[in-house]
Amino acid sequence: MYVYADNAATTAVSKTALDAMMPCLTECYGNPSSLYAIGQRAAEKLAEARSVFAQYLHAQTGEITFTSGGSEADNQAILSAGMIGAKEGKKHIISTKFEHHAVLHTLRRMERLGFEVTLLDIPENGVVTAEQVRRAIRPDTCLVSVMFANNEIGTVQPIAEIGAVCAQAGVLFHTDAVQAAGHLPIDVQAMHIDLLSLSAHKFHGPKGVGVLYARKGIALTNVIEGGAQERGKRAGTENMPGICGAAAAFREACLHMDENAAHLIPLRDKLLTELSKIPHSIINGDRVKRLPGNVNLCFEGVEGESMLLLLDEKGISASSGSACTSGSLDPSHVLLALGRPHEVAHGSLRLTLCETNTAEEADYILSVLPGIVDYLRDMSPVWDELEHGQRKHQI
Amino acid sequence: MYVYADNAATTAVSKTALDAMMPCLTECYGNPSSLYAIGQRAAEKLAEARSVFAQYLHAQTGEITFTSGGSEADNQAILSAGMIGAKEGKKHIISTKFEHHAVLHTLRRMERLGFEVTLLDIPENGVVTAEQVRRAIRPDTCLVSVMFANNEIGTVQPIAEIGAVCAQAGVLFHTDAVQAAGHLPIDVQAMHIDLLSLSAHKFHGPKGVGVLYARKGIALTNVIEGGAQERGKRAGTENMPGICGAAAAFREACLHMDENAAHLIPLRDKLLTELSKIPHSIINGDRVKRLPGNVNLCFEGVEGESMLLLLDEKGISASSGSACTSGSLDPSHVLLALGRPHEVAHGSLRLTLCETNTAEEADYILSVLPGIVDYLRDMSPVWDELEHGQRKHQI
Repeated sequence: MYVYADNAATTAVSKTALDAMMPCLTECYGNPSSLYAIGQRAAEKLAEARSVFAQYLHAQTGEITFTSGGSEADNQAILSAGMIGAKEGKKHIISTKFEHHAVLHTLRRMERLGFEVTLLDIPENGVVTAEQVRRAIRPDTCLVSVMFANNEIGTVQPIAEIGAVCAQAGVLFHTDAVQAAGHLPIDVQAMHIDLLSLSAHKFHGPKGVGVLYARKGIALTNVIEGGAQERGKRAGTENMPGICGAAAAFREACLHMDENAAHLIPLRDKLLTELSKIPHSIINGDRVKRLPGNVNLCFEGVEGESMLLLLDEKGISASSGSACTSGSLDPSHVLLALGRPHEVAHGSLRLTLCETNTAEEADYILSVLPGIVDYLRDMSPVWDELEHGQRKHQI
Repeated sequence: MYVYADNAATTAVSKTALDAMMPCLTECYGNPSSLYAIGQRAAEKLAEARSVFAQYLHAQTGEITFTSGGSEADNQAILSAGMIGAKEGKKHIISTKFEHHAVLHTLRRMERLGFEVTLLDIPENGVVTAEQVRRAIRPDTCLVSVMFANNEIGTVQPIAEIGAVCAQAGVLFHTDAVQAAGHLPIDVQAMHIDLLSLSAHKFHGPKGVGVLYARKGIALTNVIEGGAQERGKRAGTENMPGICGAAAAFREACLHMDENAAHLIPLRDKLLTELSKIPHSIINGDRVKRLPGNVNLCFEGVEGESMLLLLDEKGISASSGSACTSGSLDPSHVLLALGRPHEVAHGSLRLTLCETNTAEEADYILSVLPGIVDYLRDMSPVWDELEHGQRKHQI
C-alpha cells in the first residue's frame, strides 16, 4: 500500500486543474498582453481565473494579484505594508514566532530596513489570541501578520477576531493563508483581512502559482520590477497554465470544502487518538482548532528523520515538519515556539491528509507506526536514559 | 491561413517540453525538499534540469538558480551585483537605453538606493559597442548590464567583446539573454559573462520559469525570502513541471539551433527585403547582427495598433514591439533610443518567427501587409501631409 500523507508539503495536481491547464500548454499559448485574438483569449482566461479567486475570497477582481507562489506573496504583502507604514512614520510590525520562513525571513529584512518587529509567543495549544495582538499594538504599529493555519501543527488562528482588533486599531492585517486556502472558509470582508497570501499547490493546483489579495487602496510595492503586468505591481509574463490550473483547483476545493472536511476530520481524529496512545507521545497543537487533515505528534526518544525513512520503506510519505526546511538539522522553530524541548522536537511527525486519503490508509499508518517507534526507541541509547527518567526533557 | 508571428512575445509549448512536464503534473508530484521516495524523484528531476542549463550555457550546476521568469532573474542579478558593489563602495552601474523594462525599472530602484546609473546611447544600427562600455567604466563601476539581443529589434550585441572589457576592468557583467537563449550560442566562460537571465517561454518552454546564472563566488541577494530552496537564494517550492519543461525545451532548442537558424534566416531576410520595398519604410536595427527570426520595420504614416488589428483580421498575429508594454500609448523606448521620431516609432511592426513558421506563411504576410499599409495611409490625414513633405519627421 502506498500512502501519501504529506499534503501540507505539496499536493498532486487534480484532474480538474490539469484539464484547465492543458489549453494554455497547447493551442491557447498567447501572451495575455498581446492585442491579437489568441492573446486576448489568454487575457480572458486570466480575467476568469482572477474572478474565481475574488469570488471565493469575497474580494474584488482588482484586489487579486498573481505571483509565483505563497512565498512571493508573503514577501510582497509585508514589504508593501511596511512601505505604507514608513510613509506615516510607523515602523513597528507584529507577527508570531511560528510563522512560515517566508514571513519570518521577510521580517528580518524589514528589521534591516529599520523596522522593529514584535513576535508573539505561542500558547501551548498553538493558537494565538486576539488579546495578545491587541496588547502588542502600539501607536507606531503598521502591520499585524498572523498565519491563518500553521503549516506544521495545523492550528487555526482566530483570524476574524484578530482582524477586528486590527481594524479597530487602524492597523493593516496580513494573513499567510497558504495552508488554509481551499481547506477553510475565507471571507476577507467579514474577517477584516487587508492582505492575504495563498499558494496553489497546497490545494491540488500546480506548483509555481500564488495569489496576493490586497484590499483596494493598499498600494503594493513591487517585489519584481519590469513590465506592466498585474496592473504594474508584478512584472513578468503571466504563468497562464499555472494560473488557470490554480483557479480551477481553488474553485473545486471551495465547492467541496464541507464534504472534504467531513471526510477528513474523523480520519484525523482517529489518528490523533490512536497515535497518542503510544507511550511518551504528545499531540502538537489544539485537537479541535486545527486543519481537517493535520496530524502532528512528537514521540520522545525517536529521531524524526529515521522515523520518516522507515515510514518511506513501508510506503508512507510523511514529514517531520515543513518541507521548506528539510535538510536543516535544526529542530522545528514551530515546535520550539510551542515549548517543546529540542530533543522532543526532533521526534516530530506530521501526517497531512487530503480528500483522497482513505480510512484504510489511516489504518495502515496505525498498523505500521507504533512498531517503528518501538524499533527506534530500542535502538536509542538516549531513550534508555529517558525511560529511566534521568534525562527527560533536559538536553 | 493562420500565422503566429509573435514568438518574441511568447512561444507555443513544444511537445518535448509538455512531455517533460506531464510526469510532474501527474504521478511525480513530490516536493523536491521532501526526504521520501517521490520527493527524491522530484529532487532528481530538478538536478537533471539544472544540469541541462549548466551544460548548454557552459556553466556549473551550482551556478544555476531557477526563478519565476526572466524578469525575476533580471531583478535578482542587478540587485545582487549592486549589493556586492555597495560593500566595496562601488555604486555605479552601466547599462543601455534599450534594455527591457525588467532591467530599466530595476535600475531605477537601484537609483533610489543611491546608485548612479549610466545608460549608453544606442547607435543607429541598434548594436552597442564594447568601446562604448569601456569608455563608460569608472573606478566605482560595479556592474555592466547589456542585453544579449534586443527584444524588439532583435539586434545582437557583441557580448564576448563586452565581457572581455568587463573582465579586464574587474567589473561584473550581466546580460539579459531572454531573447537570445535557445536561439544563439551562449558560452558564459568564453564570453566572460558573470550573470545571465533567461526565460523558458521564449524558446517553447512554459511561462513562469526563468533561470539566473551567476558565476561561482557571486553572492546572490534574495528577491524572495523564505525557505531554503535553491541553496537559500530563491525561496518557494520549486515549479517542478515548469522547470522540467523549461529544461527539455532548452535542450531541444540548443540541439537544433543551427538548423533552426538556417531555416529562419532566409525567411527573415526575405521579409526584410520585400517589406522594406514599401515606400517610406525603415528597417529597425542591423540587418545581419540580428536574431534569426526577427523582422522589425517602421512604416511612416501608419498607426501601429490599427495595423496589428488589421493583420489579426487576416489571421496574422504580430506586434508593434514588446508585449510587456502593450496597452501603453507611449512609443517604444527602443525605437526612440534608435533615433526614430515619435510619429515614426508609432508605426512599427515586429514579426518574430520560429522554426515552425514556413515560407508559405512568410509569403502570406507579404501578400497581405502592403495592402494594409496602403489602406491605413489612405485613411490618415497625417500621411497626406507627410507625403507632401510638410511634416515629415517633425512632430
